[in-house]
Amino acid sequence: MTGKPRTKYANLGRCSLLGGLALIVSCPAAMADDPGRRWTPEDIVSVPKVISMALSYDGAELAYLERTVDIAGNRTLLVLYRLDLASGARAEVARAIAADKLEAIAGKRAWNVLLDLGDGQQLYQIDSGASARLVLASEAKVTVGQAEGNLFAVSSLAPHRVGVLAYDWSPDRRWLWYAALKPGPSDTRVQFDSEVTAQKHRRRAPVPAVVELRLRSSSGEDTLIATRPTSDRLAFYLGATVRWGEDGLRYFVETTSGIKSDESEAFDLKFASLVSTSAGTLPGLPSVDYLKGPHGGQLASEGTGASLDLIETGPDGTKHSYGRYGFYIGDPRSAASWRSEDGKRLVLGVRTTTHPRYGLAVVSKAGIRTILTGKSLSRCDFRADLSWGICVEESLSQPPRFVRVEPGSGRITKVLTLSARHEAIAPLKITAHQWKNRADHIATGFIVWPRDYIKGQPYPAILVTHGSDADERFADQDLQWDFPVQAWAERGYVVVLINDPSPRLNPDLMAGYAQWRSGKGHLSPAKVQDSAWIGVVHMLEDVVSQLVSDGLVDRSRVGIAGYSRGSQITNVAVTQSGLFRAASSGDGSFLEPSAWSQVTRSYTAIFGGPPAGDFLENYRRLSPSLRADHACAAVLQQMATPLAGAIDFHMSLRAARVPSQISLYPGETTATDETHLFHIPSNRLAAMRENLAWFDFWLRDVEQTDASSAGRAGHWIEMARSRRDNCPTFPAISSHAPP
Amino acid sequence: MTGKPRTKYANLGRCSLLGGLALIVSCPAAMADDPGRRWTPEDIVSVPKVISMALSYDGAELAYLERTVDIAGNRTLLVLYRLDLASGARAEVARAIAADKLEAIAGKRAWNVLLDLGDGQQLYQIDSGASARLVLASEAKVTVGQAEGNLFAVSSLAPHRVGVLAYDWSPDRRWLWYAALKPGPSDTRVQFDSEVTAQKHRRRAPVPAVVELRLRSSSGEDTLIATRPTSDRLAFYLGATVRWGEDGLRYFVETTSGIKSDESEAFDLKFASLVSTSAGTLPGLPSVDYLKGPHGGQLASEGTGASLDLIETGPDGTKHSYGRYGFYIGDPRSAASWRSEDGKRLVLGVRTTTHPRYGLAVVSKAGIRTILTGKSLSRCDFRADLSWGICVEESLSQPPRFVRVEPGSGRITKVLTLSARHEAIAPLKITAHQWKNRADHIATGFIVWPRDYIKGQPYPAILVTHGSDADERFADQDLQWDFPVQAWAERGYVVVLINDPSPRLNPDLMAGYAQWRSGKGHLSPAKVQDSAWIGVVHMLEDVVSQLVSDGLVDRSRVGIAGYSRGSQITNVAVTQSGLFRAASSGDGSFLEPSAWSQVTRSYTAIFGGPPAGDFLENYRRLSPSLRADHACAAVLQQMATPLAGAIDFHMSLRAARVPSQISLYPGETTATDETHLFHIPSNRLAAMRENLAWFDFWLRDVEQTDASSAGRAGHWIEMARSRRDNCPTFPAISSHAPP
Repeated sequence: MTGKPRTKYANLGRCSLLGGLALIVSCPAAMADDPGRRWTPEDIVSVPKVISMALSYDGAELAYLERTVDIAGNRTLLVLYRLDLASGARAEVARAIAADKLEAIAGKRAWNVLLDLGDGQQLYQIDSGASARLVLASEAKVTVGQAEGNLFAVSSLAPHRVGVLAYDWSPDRRWLWYAALKPGPSDTRVQFDSEVTAQKHRRRAPVPAVVELRLRSSSGEDTLIATRPTSDRLAFYLGATVRWGEDGLRYFVETTSGIKSDESEAFDLKFASLVSTSAGTLPGLPSVDYLKGPHGGQLASEGTGASLDLIETGPDGTKHSYGRYGFYIGDPRSAASWRSEDGKRLVLGVRTTTHPRYGLAVVSKAGIRTILTGKSLSRCDFRADLSWGICVEESLSQPPRFVRVEPGSGRITKVLTLSARHEAIAPLKITAHQWKNRADHIATGFIVWPRDYIKGQPYPAILVTHGSDADERFADQDLQWDFPVQAWAERGYVVVLINDPSPRLNPDLMAGYAQWRSGKGHLSPAKVQDSAWIGVVHMLEDVVSQLVSDGLVDRSRVGIAGYSRGSQITNVAVTQSGLFRAASSGDGSFLEPSAWSQVTRSYTAIFGGPPAGDFLENYRRLSPSLRADHACAAVLQQMATPLAGAIDFHMSLRAARVPSQISLYPGETTATDETHLFHIPSNRLAAMRENLAWFDFWLRDVEQTDASSAGRAGHWIEMARSRRDNCPTFPAISSHAPP
Repeated sequence: MTGKPRTKYANLGRCSLLGGLALIVSCPAAMADDPGRRWTPEDIVSVPKVISMALSYDGAELAYLERTVDIAGNRTLLVLYRLDLASGARAEVARAIAADKLEAIAGKRAWNVLLDLGDGQQLYQIDSGASARLVLASEAKVTVGQAEGNLFAVSSLAPHRVGVLAYDWSPDRRWLWYAALKPGPSDTRVQFDSEVTAQKHRRRAPVPAVVELRLRSSSGEDTLIATRPTSDRLAFYLGATVRWGEDGLRYFVETTSGIKSDESEAFDLKFASLVSTSAGTLPGLPSVDYLKGPHGGQLASEGTGASLDLIETGPDGTKHSYGRYGFYIGDPRSAASWRSEDGKRLVLGVRTTTHPRYGLAVVSKAGIRTILTGKSLSRCDFRADLSWGICVEESLSQPPRFVRVEPGSGRITKVLTLSARHEAIAPLKITAHQWKNRADHIATGFIVWPRDYIKGQPYPAILVTHGSDADERFADQDLQWDFPVQAWAERGYVVVLINDPSPRLNPDLMAGYAQWRSGKGHLSPAKVQDSAWIGVVHMLEDVVSQLVSDGLVDRSRVGIAGYSRGSQITNVAVTQSGLFRAASSGDGSFLEPSAWSQVTRSYTAIFGGPPAGDFLENYRRLSPSLRADHACAAVLQQMATPLAGAIDFHMSLRAARVPSQISLYPGETTATDETHLFHIPSNRLAAMRENLAWFDFWLRDVEQTDASSAGRAGHWIEMARSRRDNCPTFPAISSHAPP
């Protein structure tokens, strides 16, 4: 077991040590006499998140984009700041609806960035001026977001218009390559078969759009080089990954648009003629995600278990091992990677396998230096010579702070706290754990202890499950969604943040997960179901048993919450196990029969075929709506869209007289949907209050008198009265219900 | 058996007989030497339909609204005509996007009508002027139709804006009562449970709207009397059914908005104060559909069988019988009803029980006079004294014509043919039939014989089924939807138009149908399934057997087509019976598990409960997508919207290697849907051509070389090659495949 609570409180200690440094240090209010205040839902909603950062060319300043909320204006904002590292002075440059691709400009103290300041996403420059200066605008006729007539794209932002999608300057800045989003030809043909089945759950009509790849010369001539479908991921997300040359450039597009195994095509463009000629097709998307090592090969973590091999594979297939480490590289949540100009040294973001958190690995031919603490270095930027960089340091109990990191020595020094509001909260006791289930599978996770915990008292417990997102980040929305983890702990719940048993830590699960993803393999549907769902439920049951036997948890008052992947586990758990008395399932419907036509490949692995004929038995074994009569828990489903499978589950629970509520959180208008990760603060607050009221009602018989039940308590009482009793009875335990 | 072909051809004969009358007669081109030309899909699309007609106060003119198509402009139009009955001169007054409530104005040769001439539906007057004159406009901010941001309402029109929904003049025309459609308050609350489940299959976001009930004085003061939800059917469809008095009026609203058993509330309004006071609530909607007889009681057809009692039930419950007749009153498709000013005589539209068609019944204390021919009188208007009226006369083989009807004598004389285009087509041989199945149930219907039929040759056959719409109307869209019945006959198919065995003709089916509709009853789900679906399939099988033994049909080349209710029967037929080799199912998905949350009441009767637990077996017995592996027929589904259940059925058929295609017909834009009855001519034509190509391919091995297969023939060949063979083999018959 790692991550003892002492180490958490010790974080606060370091602050004073650093007080004498030239670097500015703003000490948390918690360092005053009072131990700090308690968590509120507003605190959770307003945790700032740095999504992008870039050191100026001379290293004097840091520019960064912070995702934050404007509670009064009820919107999510992206705020662009400049931070003077010498003085610690921070200046707000812009508040944007959307922002992307912040990059420092070589040779001067300036940056480029894509911002939507109200006229759609365009290219801006930040330099001596107080505000962002428009560099390039492309008429923004296409709106991206979950609204009728928009281009649907994975997003956690309000619908926003996009002019410039991506950009790339030539090294000498004489040429500007960019991708623009434009309306496509409207298509009202008769549609057939897969064109129709794809619309089974389509609630909105998307707009047709295309990506224009364009080149602009220093004298302002603007040339359309190519027009690509938005399904071309290289064009849409990466502006076609340009490689600049002396007299021209090479760009890459995805020809198969993700339909079958990916394929790219390279094109060479000469500046003189501005004509593109094909340079041939390549399997996969080699123009991205290529992590080149000191030996010129590709770096990757290989193997399974708590320690993994870091391997560099040369073009000829020869493998060089850097040894075994308790981390892996390439996790999209980890810090990025930086290569020294001579290519001899790299700094790589890593994620640890046990006690999940983020750190750095400095890689050279000489070997590896790991920079790992009890906390996470979740985002960074480094000087070109890798002599030092600035990172965001955070943990489950420490708010994000900027620290200075020196790859050479591994030295970490504090620069600035990012949120005085959250520094002022007395940290909760949070401990890191590894658990084993009946099958000897290992799962990692954390316990958030009740505030004012009294030893020997069994507490009500809520398990929060979401794939692998339980790690050392501060109140991260990826992990806790709209589950008020910290507020639950304040109210006297034991909150268990638990990851699924990962195939990386449990090799025998790999085949099942692989078959789920690829649809191919030799396992029976039942075996696939056991690997990725049923076994996870066993883990949850076994963790609770341990906590009960430790005297920490009251077995008769256990709840479960999860969204997305977590909603799968939550829905399966309550229909496979009698352990749970209350559940909150967030915006999911996977595993329901209704989704078959949308995910035939996965469902073929999980169920064998469509929900018909002999395959139906495989659905009855796992699909929550077909097992509603097995449920004991009162099930709350909080939705961003009215997913058919979630509605089916709700209807089946009701028909089985199991308490069930489905709540749909609105978008900005009736023609707009909330996003999978809610972006509307009032929705996040209402959903958290609903979760507080729901679990208090079903686990602690506490009926909310405030607005948090949205006037639903009457319905809950009625459901409780008319429910069919199919819950197992556990030996009674004297239960402690905090005020 | 009725409806011999001779009587059909004889129709043409009558024309010359009438030639000598003062009444104008335009004789069909078919009366020239040539027997007339053959049917094309364009002929079917362009059949005119009179939807409303009104004689002028003095009886000199008839105004009528004709639903027709503009093939070049690719839109459905409502054309308003004036017809001078003396001269037979017809003048077009207006071409509207939408039109409703055509009413003659007392005391002058003028009419009121609601028209959308481009500025939304408003109130117009037609009088001496050449064009319609605007009387009342209410700002049209709400669009009605199947498009995003519209008010969804059952409609077969393109989306159109509505200002005035309904109107009602006081007898002295000093007061104008009207209903206006206005935007309602936009609602972006969190939604719960039934508010969410109602959105399971919602593809578009509707706009919130309300109905304003308003009163306008002769001096132009306009007063808002009440605001009602659009779910109030009395307010939305009937402008609150006003009763005018001396010093005020009484209006009725639906208080329960159809949520539970309907309830109305009456309000009294005094002209002096313009204040409404409640006059109490009443069960049901007594302000509508009240058919008052000569004795002051309510008229209704009672009983079952081929002959029904026409009964007048007095307020005290006493019943007066007018005797038994082979018709019933109150069918919404039949002509309306007219009462003489003294209330002593009525003319009622009726529908016959055997050989289904429409006629009239003249009711007085003396008794009943029936006006019935071999054809239908499908729409009429009569003089106030009921001395005479004008009706639309039509049959399956006779295009609509205006005739003069004298209730006193029953005399019918021709006035005008409505469509020279269709008069010019050589009528097909169409015979009326009654069939009995193995359970002695009776079904009515018609056989459309192949053009150039050669006795003794077995022909491929297509059964067209749609509830009860098979009757003597001319190429009516209600019956044949986008099934090219006449074009099939031209190509050498035997086309059977067949009604379901009706509970009225088959009393023992009544309980099953009643339970389906009410959700209440003591029958088992299996018995309900047998009454309304399985038994219908037995009827189809037995009809085909008779036609095969008559030597008319080749058992190995039988297809089935149906939309709406007909799509239920089609999908059940192909998954219960091996008889059918090809099917076309139109815009349906009822009986699929996915619809449970939308129709719990019906599904409780049909399946017992949700598609889970033990109820699943009841779904496996009937739901087409759960029985796809039983199907032999190649199934085409033509859709106006991508209904989830239809997609499930398609996916299951494909998984079972049964040939299947689902085709989605587009609306005007990507944000608009086609309507259940297609209103876009190009869609109707394409769907009919697709049906021609589909059945030719699967029943006659004819591969279309024209555009009618929309380039899909290649896919069909591939499906035919890879299909699983689960069709029964029948004794081979020498088959005649026309060129």
